[in-house]
Amino acid sequence: MELSKDILFIKSPQDALQEVLNQLNPDKVAILVDENTARHCLPYFKHDQYLIIEIQSGEINKNLRTCEKIWEALTRAGFSRKSLLVNVGGGVIGDMGGFVASTYKRGIRFINYPTTLLAMVDANIGGKLGIDFMGLKNHIGLFNDPERILIFTDFLKTLPPRELRSGFGEVIKHGLIRDEHYWKQTSTSQFPEMEWKSVIQRSVEIKSEVVKEDPRENGLRKILNYGHTLGHAVETWYLNHQKSLLHGEAIAVGMILEAHLSFQLKLLDEKSLEEITGYITSIYEGIAIPPMENLMELMGQDKKNVGNEINFSLLEKIGKCVYDMKVDEKMIAAAIKFYNTLK
Amino acid sequence: MELSKDILFIKSPQDALQEVLNQLNPDKVAILVDENTARHCLPYFKHDQYLIIEIQSGEINKNLRTCEKIWEALTRAGFSRKSLLVNVGGGVIGDMGGFVASTYKRGIRFINYPTTLLAMVDANIGGKLGIDFMGLKNHIGLFNDPERILIFTDFLKTLPPRELRSGFGEVIKHGLIRDEHYWKQTSTSQFPEMEWKSVIQRSVEIKSEVVKEDPRENGLRKILNYGHTLGHAVETWYLNHQKSLLHGEAIAVGMILEAHLSFQLKLLDEKSLEEITGYITSIYEGIAIPPMENLMELMGQDKKNVGNEINFSLLEKIGKCVYDMKVDEKMIAAAIKFYNTLK
Repeated sequence: MELSKDILFIKSPQDALQEVLNQLNPDKVAILVDENTARHCLPYFKHDQYLIIEIQSGEINKNLRTCEKIWEALTRAGFSRKSLLVNVGGGVIGDMGGFVASTYKRGIRFINYPTTLLAMVDANIGGKLGIDFMGLKNHIGLFNDPERILIFTDFLKTLPPRELRSGFGEVIKHGLIRDEHYWKQTSTSQFPEMEWKSVIQRSVEIKSEVVKEDPRENGLRKILNYGHTLGHAVETWYLNHQKSLLHGEAIAVGMILEAHLSFQLKLLDEKSLEEITGYITSIYEGIAIPPMENLMELMGQDKKNVGNEINFSLLEKIGKCVYDMKVDEKMIAAAIKFYNTLK
Repeated sequence: MELSKDILFIKSPQDALQEVLNQLNPDKVAILVDENTARHCLPYFKHDQYLIIEIQSGEINKNLRTCEKIWEALTRAGFSRKSLLVNVGGGVIGDMGGFVASTYKRGIRFINYPTTLLAMVDANIGGKLGIDFMGLKNHIGLFNDPERILIFTDFLKTLPPRELRSGFGEVIKHGLIRDEHYWKQTSTSQFPEMEWKSVIQRSVEIKSEVVKEDPRENGLRKILNYGHTLGHAVETWYLNHQKSLLHGEAIAVGMILEAHLSFQLKLLDEKSLEEITGYITSIYEGIAIPPMENLMELMGQDKKNVGNEINFSLLEKIGKCVYDMKVDEKMIAAAIKFYNTLK
């Protein structure tokens, strides 16, 4: 099934790679994995034919030190401008591998095999590449696209349930910001019976449409930040405190908080707020949020801010999102209070 | 005098900056300098109005550690996507400052004040940005352009004579690869009487023409590498041995070696070889070159190579350069032997 010229559903990771190699004709090939994709995904490839670069998984390792290790491995193996990097993993591998490839000898080609739901529906699409720096998410990076994104849905079977649930946070977001029907469909399906292929297809379509219209996030693309302004702050706080919170879990919290901001601004009606809050809390239970002052401080560094204002992307209704909405501290405090009263 | 929309000769650094600020309207401004430009060039600006970031000069500091310091300074000062970085310095400041700006929050705007002849005629033009890594020149980087290049020729008066002479290496190259008349003109002028403004103008024209036609170096742009394949290897060897050799000095050596390769391939006649060799050695005296085996090893990592072949850009005649010429080790040995017999 072809989603676009560059994003394809595939039946065999190795056959798909061979086809890409025939087309791109690189002089050398490296596969970037972490310890999880080394175990679960690498066996799908003829991996003794390529340079394998293995890094430690996790957002905590998405930093310059890990980039240096990858650049070093490529350098020692004599990789040239005509070489290819194959990223096999989730968002961390895709974001960091893409950044490393885009800056090695001023840029070599790369392709992505997203192995998590999050990477399939979100992280791999839209050209945002980079690493964390000074405890700030994606603080150093650039925009660039892989030559191909190859989606092998069987990789989802290798995921821990919590990881799958995390990725689903972005699926929920896609419905909320752009497609009420998709929201209804996904929010009434049971997780084990979810048809992942059609879910991924619709999410990729939504994200691709938005990114295509505004690649550099000057306008429309900002709707993809729904749930992410407070969600990123929550995620960064957990990261800096070495506590475990996955991206989609943080964004789930962020979507509830920002749905409440939308309600406070009289954009979203109370019934929709309840519908959103009820469904999200039924999936993502008991996630604690950091104190108000920490969140404010972390949002001061958000890339989406200009000067001292805090901009939010908020819901007008389920299926429609507006951006550049100014929000003050009092409203954020009220949203946090609302969240903390939820059971 | 306007060279192009983005490259301008200016009469006052501060007035020119103010004009750019009026046009670009950044929320914050930082000026990046090294200890030399802090002393000689910063006084031309109202420097108490901007964040000043000072780094240590020299190719040895063009590395990731210095980038981290600059990213940190921008982060601590709360620089946003709408902020501006002003690079005031030579090639190192321009290459590294541009790379840092292009990756901070996935890219902020930057402008360059080249303060050396080398940066004015070469380094600042053409979008090649980056840093050294594992002892390899410009090994990590990307392509991007400053919003403006502002040339204030009075900055040349602050340069040590050796630095000025180094930059002149690229001027010589521009004549040799593209304009026989320009070669004759510059090679018959005495250094103290050189009209720098018209020299810079012609060099900027030549480099801009070539880069415009082939920005990503797939073809024609390779002629700018004349003197650089062996020259870079010589420069890298000196860098790794903590010996002092400036870029233009290394390229001067490279141009002699590669003129001899051109002669061996029967592209260049003997008279022209003698003319080139005579003039270059009259300016750049007594530079020793490293042993053959070191040069070969260093060229194995050159970004211009694909697979195991060594490609050179060579002279067909004075004023005309051809690229992708294959050269073997024996010929390189002969060129080194020729160089070592020169007095």
